[in-house]
Amino acid sequence: MLIRAFVPAHITAFFVPVFHDDPLKAGSLGAGINLDKGTNVFVSVETGTLERHIHIAFNGEPVNREEAVISYSVAERLVPSDFLGEVEIWQYFDFPNGHGFGNSAGGALGTALALSYAFGGTWLRASQIAHEAEVTHRGGLGDVIAQLAGGIEVRVKAGGPGIGVTDNLFFEDYRVLVVPLGKLSTKEVLDGDVVKAIEAEGRKALEELLKEPTPERLMVLARAFAERTGLLTGELLELAKELDRVLKNPSSMIMLGKGLFALVLEKELENAKALLADLKVSYDVAEIHEGKPKVGRWVG
Amino acid sequence: MLIRAFVPAHITAFFVPVFHDDPLKAGSLGAGINLDKGTNVFVSVETGTLERHIHIAFNGEPVNREEAVISYSVAERLVPSDFLGEVEIWQYFDFPNGHGFGNSAGGALGTALALSYAFGGTWLRASQIAHEAEVTHRGGLGDVIAQLAGGIEVRVKAGGPGIGVTDNLFFEDYRVLVVPLGKLSTKEVLDGDVVKAIEAEGRKALEELLKEPTPERLMVLARAFAERTGLLTGELLELAKELDRVLKNPSSMIMLGKGLFALVLEKELENAKALLADLKVSYDVAEIHEGKPKVGRWVG
Repeated sequence: MLIRAFVPAHITAFFVPVFHDDPLKAGSLGAGINLDKGTNVFVSVETGTLERHIHIAFNGEPVNREEAVISYSVAERLVPSDFLGEVEIWQYFDFPNGHGFGNSAGGALGTALALSYAFGGTWLRASQIAHEAEVTHRGGLGDVIAQLAGGIEVRVKAGGPGIGVTDNLFFEDYRVLVVPLGKLSTKEVLDGDVVKAIEAEGRKALEELLKEPTPERLMVLARAFAERTGLLTGELLELAKELDRVLKNPSSMIMLGKGLFALVLEKELENAKALLADLKVSYDVAEIHEGKPKVGRWVG
Repeated sequence: MLIRAFVPAHITAFFVPVFHDDPLKAGSLGAGINLDKGTNVFVSVETGTLERHIHIAFNGEPVNREEAVISYSVAERLVPSDFLGEVEIWQYFDFPNGHGFGNSAGGALGTALALSYAFGGTWLRASQIAHEAEVTHRGGLGDVIAQLAGGIEVRVKAGGPGIGVTDNLFFEDYRVLVVPLGKLSTKEVLDGDVVKAIEAEGRKALEELLKEPTPERLMVLARAFAERTGLLTGELLELAKELDRVLKNPSSMIMLGKGLFALVLEKELENAKALLADLKVSYDVAEIHEGKPKVGRWVG
């Protein structure tokens, strides 16, 4: 049996981390955008061997337990302990790891959905297991519930699936331009002094967004958050300003990666592409993924 | 500007009503199925008149405020009080009203989403307004949150959007056969003695379903609920038994309408259709609608 799950890449625009001893009550407030590119997880289940084996591969390369602690912990909970057979979990990422596209949560949630589809379970239970693994092993706080919400999402009450509450903005005609330039460690940022600024600016941005809940306002608030927290500086800020010259809405910083994102209208796309080509900066363009992740039997 | 919203028809399989003075905390526990047919709401907004006018039509026929109290109350909250212009809300239903397809909630939610799209707002706020109108005017308790969940949904914590919690079952290959035979008043059933049996049997069914959360188990539990509450009797029960002879999973009763529904595999469909044609009973076949309702600008 071969199962495929797709989980959208999720870019955080601004956020407030909310820590809690109970992983299901930990999470984040904030807002972000789900893309139609992201993580595809293929799970193959074969019975008839003498032992229970679980294998995980990232982009075709087998990874050991230390390299994929989150996904292995999800798999250990969802493959029954008395199952005899081979479970292979192939995760493919459209964006590079560590660049702020929610790959870790995408792999965890895709694995949880595909294994629950194969072995039994529900969407909520699968999602909670993925969220718990993310929080416990510090992959992230809000990506799983954001990816479940789809579209342009707003986390209005922190927590995992079944506890946190998400909202969605209405939008039209936008594509998402992404400029991933490098890695940024979520762990290091959240361990640093910047957390206080993130909390204060994140709460302010959320409050303001809910007063005027539009994608245009979201980008203004995201940019103010990125600059005021001191996360968006130097070359990256200069590049954001360059992009602003050809776009109606401000670009902002991917939270948390060394990269930028922007909402782009069809008519603005050529100018933005030309600018980035001139600057010799690589980029990608994605549609917004609405609705839930996908999971089902894979034939093909 | 013309906006279209689609909200799936929702069939309740079993339920527990949960009453509360705060409409957002009222709701239901239970499970049900969302169909790819349902309610389409078209909203046209024209400015430039001297007064604020709201008009609603069901299936092309204008309805007055008494006939559409739920949708009018939604519209009154979402069309700004200082708006000068004509708002026309055209609701089209794929299934007859009062037969248990969630038309009332579909109209309320579709209206709320389309008006929020046109005048500003968010998915959560629109959904809460639709739920509140449904509860306050006794259209239903759980349809709005169930329609937002899509697929085969399970209401595991009662309440409106943002408070209630829904789960989803994994499924494959099923279509939904529906046999709508007549109306049943939700108000009358919920005012009668049967409520105690509904509460006891509904809680039992939910508990059992969560132990083995599959579509097949759902149908067994739905049928037990329908018979044990005394709601499925007489001719309707006889027809259910006829259907069972040609289907793998038991059919059950639409809650609340005088009608039946069943999950049908592709290979069973011809036999089921032939049986119903023989019996001269009209029926419909729908796919399961996964994910959220749809809303967007309508062109064409």
